Amino acid sequence: MKGNCIVAQSGGPTAVINSSACGVIEEAMKHPEIEGVYAAYNGILGVLNEEIFDLRRENPDTIARLRTTPAAALGSCRYKVRKEEDFEKILSVFQKHNIRYFFYIGGNDSMDTADRVNKLAEERGFEFRAVGVPKTIDNDLALTDHTPGYGSVIKYLATMVMEAGRDTEALYTTDTVNVIEAMGRNAGWIAAGTALARREEQDAPHIILLPEVPFDASKFKEKVKYYLDKIHRCVVVVSEGTKNPDGSYIAEQKGEFAKDAFGHTQLGGAANYIKELIERDVKVKARFAIPSTIQRNGIHFASKTDSDEAYIAGQKAVLHALNGVTGKMVTLVRESDRPYKCTTGLANLSSVANGEKYFPKEWISKDGFFVTDGFFSYARPLIEGEVKPLIKDGLPDFMRFKKHFI
Amino acid sequence: MKGNCIVAQSGGPTAVINSSACGVIEEAMKHPEIEGVYAAYNGILGVLNEEIFDLRRENPDTIARLRTTPAAALGSCRYKVRKEEDFEKILSVFQKHNIRYFFYIGGNDSMDTADRVNKLAEERGFEFRAVGVPKTIDNDLALTDHTPGYGSVIKYLATMVMEAGRDTEALYTTDTVNVIEAMGRNAGWIAAGTALARREEQDAPHIILLPEVPFDASKFKEKVKYYLDKIHRCVVVVSEGTKNPDGSYIAEQKGEFAKDAFGHTQLGGAANYIKELIERDVKVKARFAIPSTIQRNGIHFASKTDSDEAYIAGQKAVLHALNGVTGKMVTLVRESDRPYKCTTGLANLSSVANGEKYFPKEWISKDGFFVTDGFFSYARPLIEGEVKPLIKDGLPDFMRFKKHFI
Repeated sequence: MKGNCIVAQSGGPTAVINSSACGVIEEAMKHPEIEGVYAAYNGILGVLNEEIFDLRRENPDTIARLRTTPAAALGSCRYKVRKEEDFEKILSVFQKHNIRYFFYIGGNDSMDTADRVNKLAEERGFEFRAVGVPKTIDNDLALTDHTPGYGSVIKYLATMVMEAGRDTEALYTTDTVNVIEAMGRNAGWIAAGTALARREEQDAPHIILLPEVPFDASKFKEKVKYYLDKIHRCVVVVSEGTKNPDGSYIAEQKGEFAKDAFGHTQLGGAANYIKELIERDVKVKARFAIPSTIQRNGIHFASKTDSDEAYIAGQKAVLHALNGVTGKMVTLVRESDRPYKCTTGLANLSSVANGEKYFPKEWISKDGFFVTDGFFSYARPLIEGEVKPLIKDGLPDFMRFKKHFI
Repeated sequence: MKGNCIVAQSGGPTAVINSSACGVIEEAMKHPEIEGVYAAYNGILGVLNEEIFDLRRENPDTIARLRTTPAAALGSCRYKVRKEEDFEKILSVFQKHNIRYFFYIGGNDSMDTADRVNKLAEERGFEFRAVGVPKTIDNDLALTDHTPGYGSVIKYLATMVMEAGRDTEALYTTDTVNVIEAMGRNAGWIAAGTALARREEQDAPHIILLPEVPFDASKFKEKVKYYLDKIHRCVVVVSEGTKNPDGSYIAEQKGEFAKDAFGHTQLGGAANYIKELIERDVKVKARFAIPSTIQRNGIHFASKTDSDEAYIAGQKAVLHALNGVTGKMVTLVRESDRPYKCTTGLANLSSVANGEKYFPKEWISKDGFFVTDGFFSYARPLIEGEVKPLIKDGLPDFMRFKKHFI
């Protein structure tokens, strides 16, 4: 089917979401059926606002450099399409610009949007193909072995934990405990990934607090004391989503754990809370770090495996669409752990949209403060190899699109 | 002079302090005058507690890998030697073990310790040589053009700012302001170094808050609004040492800016404070990141220039001591910016101990929110090249000493 295609990125950026965009764009440009290769500026908002730019007018070198540029070069958004009129608008923009192929790189919500636009197009008799490309550092998408973006965030965060862990080791006579906050509001995948940093028992991280395990303060303090006794230090990775037994986030403490400086309920303060708890009750000095969005954009030490898979997922989306596939998301299918072999498959957009992949209970250690070997086997292949960013004057050299709007 | 030598590391770790130790150790092992090559475990505490280990019993490969291992492999401390009896103890330990050469890698306090031990040895007629090797991410040591450790911390932190800056750029429709906290309690050298990330006006960081410039909240908010108007986003780097006009840290707000969850005065909360201020008064969503000790240990993306200079400073300390030099610190002497050429010199330990190098006022931009081209010329050569850490299973592979105590 001849027509134009559009690619969009959605949700929280990752180190490799641009690699997926690169796969889509470079593949799309190889096929004569695909005429215009467009980008929606800021995800689906770019379609709704008709802010669409022409990728054929960009330098091929700029496009190639997507692979070494983090975040979302097409712009992203957190807009959840709900209103019927929004879907109508999206379809009408696609019709107006003869956009027959829609490649949406994102998570559950994006797959839901792509699915509903696809169904609406079918309903209206507009020949159209929507294929999703998975993306999220959270690794919580259903029906794919893992998500592009996850390998890179854990490789980089585990490296941070190793490096800061050596700082605590060097200064254990003063800064005895170090608490590092990992992203992951609902699942412990990211925090768990830092376990890869630990090759020997004395290596950081010594304790990992996961959202899946209700926080037991007294057991936790005992565990901290165990490490202080044994190796005179303790590095704790705490997921921002760690919860109290009553289901509230530890980051939003009530009462004694006050509001923030402006009287709002404290959010994103999981690491701070753990630090204060240790200083008050264990009576040793603690530090904390909150890498926040830095952790998900570390292209300078991203996983080559992850980056390559992100690219391939983008390519495959185009190839499948050209073969008539629609209403599907490309999935990653693990064939084996050692040697690691991963191919791609397809899943229904609607199944992905409504699914969620939890961190398996059997990968949590018995005491709840670490992960098992099963997780190591799963995660280790995902961080293999390093992306080499272009360097100029000692710092990465990222691309930006010129953005010729149509 | 025949005898044993000892090397020690002190104060906050850096990505390259081990490179200086490597320079000392590898050079010391080449010279027959130096018999035992010892390490003090945890800086001067290792001397005071007679916890000294034998570096000749370590694998040469382990020693070589100091160059790609961050933090302080000999152990560090924050113990400030003040008591006369401590100096006596140090000298008696040196005499007992026939330690004739003392190489101390550290900042002002370490240079003061080395100086006073050196003077005491002279007073007692114990032939002895103490040579200091500069180290600090803070870049505030007097009489040296810059300090080993500084180039690497700014290279890595500037990279974090670039990468997280792209995240804010991609998500400006939701997360409009991002605040990143830089270390540097007393001087703005580190925060200023992130300016290198900015190649075009739209690049992060857009605003840098330095301890040298009293914080003017209303001017700051105007500047934030200027960027929001112009490019719809703003990335702020705030030094942890940023102060109010009355000299108090912005991180320790009184009254309305409450105590922390346990009622202690809030510390290390500069980024949090700026985030809250923006959300309350500028009424856009802001995020913040606190890289904390992660920033100073980033060997995986450390500056090769910095690492090499750290190594050479260690080597030179040994060569000078063998030539009879004592009571001096090795300095870095810049011959030219472009092409960058740096040699070494010597300064009196006592002058370094009592000096401090402030961030030059003339390198602060007129509005107080950025740095001038003069700073760029100074800082750019310091971040050239990348250290390549050894990688095993996708993560850095650091060394640890076996530590055979004597």
